[in-house]
Amino acid sequence: MADEFDLIKRLFLPLAGGRPEALNLSDDVALIAGPPGQQWAVTKDAIVAGVHFFPDDPPGQIAQKLVRVNLSDLAAKGAEPRFLLLATCFPQNVEEGWLDRFASGLKADCAMFGVAVIGGDTVSTAGPLVLTLTAMGLVPENTALLRSNARSGDMIWLSGSLGDGALGLLVAKGEGKSLPKACAEALLDRYRLPRPRVALGPRLRGLAHASMDVSDGLMADLGHICEASGVRGVVEADLLPLSEAGRAALDAGMGEGLATVVTGGDDYEILFTAPPSAEKDLLGLSRELDLRLTRIGRVTTGEGVTLLDRAGQEIPLARAGYNHFRGDAG
Amino acid sequence: MADEFDLIKRLFLPLAGGRPEALNLSDDVALIAGPPGQQWAVTKDAIVAGVHFFPDDPPGQIAQKLVRVNLSDLAAKGAEPRFLLLATCFPQNVEEGWLDRFASGLKADCAMFGVAVIGGDTVSTAGPLVLTLTAMGLVPENTALLRSNARSGDMIWLSGSLGDGALGLLVAKGEGKSLPKACAEALLDRYRLPRPRVALGPRLRGLAHASMDVSDGLMADLGHICEASGVRGVVEADLLPLSEAGRAALDAGMGEGLATVVTGGDDYEILFTAPPSAEKDLLGLSRELDLRLTRIGRVTTGEGVTLLDRAGQEIPLARAGYNHFRGDAG
Repeated sequence: MADEFDLIKRLFLPLAGGRPEALNLSDDVALIAGPPGQQWAVTKDAIVAGVHFFPDDPPGQIAQKLVRVNLSDLAAKGAEPRFLLLATCFPQNVEEGWLDRFASGLKADCAMFGVAVIGGDTVSTAGPLVLTLTAMGLVPENTALLRSNARSGDMIWLSGSLGDGALGLLVAKGEGKSLPKACAEALLDRYRLPRPRVALGPRLRGLAHASMDVSDGLMADLGHICEASGVRGVVEADLLPLSEAGRAALDAGMGEGLATVVTGGDDYEILFTAPPSAEKDLLGLSRELDLRLTRIGRVTTGEGVTLLDRAGQEIPLARAGYNHFRGDAG
Repeated sequence: MADEFDLIKRLFLPLAGGRPEALNLSDDVALIAGPPGQQWAVTKDAIVAGVHFFPDDPPGQIAQKLVRVNLSDLAAKGAEPRFLLLATCFPQNVEEGWLDRFASGLKADCAMFGVAVIGGDTVSTAGPLVLTLTAMGLVPENTALLRSNARSGDMIWLSGSLGDGALGLLVAKGEGKSLPKACAEALLDRYRLPRPRVALGPRLRGLAHASMDVSDGLMADLGHICEASGVRGVVEADLLPLSEAGRAALDAGMGEGLATVVTGGDDYEILFTAPPSAEKDLLGLSRELDLRLTRIGRVTTGEGVTLLDRAGQEIPLARAGYNHFRGDAG
């Protein structure tokens, strides 16, 4: 089985018919004409029980994760979220109480992020729960932050902290018993409830060159930016921002350590590149939003992505990120 | 388990936050701001193997059915289709050859209907194949044909022929062995390959009052129009347009006869109401498009829907249409 990126390129790219709205199916959104002076950024993600969440996860959190992974895509493009269309494929024996808690989670996030559900579909399935969300946000014309705009000489930046989602998944799978309870819970919470950086994204317009959210893993997603932009990305491991809980998990020897942090995915932070001249504004923005923004590396000419240790030596990584049809390697 | 309409009303309507774009989640599309003078009609349908199609149906036809059920929604609103976003949840063991044939079907329909795939998501599932499509079409501002605009005194019209989809489903299930082969194949084809009335829909703007496509069954869908419009619908059984194959199937005693035709669903014809003054234009349009348009009844004051026989007596129906969570009754 080919990986999902090859699959999309081979099967679906010809169906885009070269329309500029599709961004070659190689970005996180499509961009279509909106109200005067604006464009709709449209993204659509599917999540499946047993793949993207555990069937016995709290239903409200499943709903919130669905909303947030999509809003994270919009945020990373600089768009302000407005509307959702939800398609639900519920198992036939789904219970009313489960549905109520699912809807409560949705409601909480609609209120928190100022979005409304304006359509969708509700069907039944004999298989696991499948949810797909189409999210639409507005961005001023020609200001969306694309993957393809990184330039040699840019600094590479990351919002928030890295690795908490992947380490939280390990906690959910039963690892990390030796961790302080507060740390384990903090990681689990970050896995179950991504924090889409909706306040940050629109503020990056005019400052950042290229941008995307980290969902498949830092190195894989930086690879997407570099491939789309025709540049090389160099990340310094020492600069990677870890949370307190993340650092405790690494100290406790969880997962594959640094490799889990840079390839694990489920971060939903914004990874972006910006010219050195933007540094001061970015640090000011970080203070204003009370959100860590960390310079983690630089963009150079060439291709591919590299992770360097303190001595400037490349740290080899067995895999770059999650892939749906190989199970792991990407 | 409540039916899907109650479910949507109770769980998801509060999430629309009263936004006019949502049309109270009681129409087939959402309407959002588009390029100057236009609106995007946005619809999203999900189809599941074993529910909406047979797992061993030809993959190209599964793709085409998915496209067409969504384009049918757009057409019935008077919108011209432009863009698709496709989320696919393929079983992990899906074969390359299957995927190629699926993509070929998509490609054929993108070409036939002038639409492009501009985004989506590709994930894996341990369960049956699930496909969701978000379809977007353009309609001039404030001209979309809604469910809620039927008026007492209107005539009720239907495009094409009724019942072929439902009878085709029975053929797929092994009924109709006594039918001439050409009839059985014609019905099966109509079940597998809906004909969205994309040429008709936009031409109904300014002529029709209320409109929707028939997917759940004529009586159920007319009921939706009547409920949304606060009127009563009266259909005369003798006026219902049957295809040759459909008439042969009824003569052969397939299914529940007339009840299958008016409640079976999967028609994807446009059901609309129009004032008597529009009749001449509609008949001219029918000739121009070479598409049957049949007056099947009338709109009166009151509520609910009624099917009358030749003598003007009500024909009782045990059920109105398909429902996902009760399996049949709606």
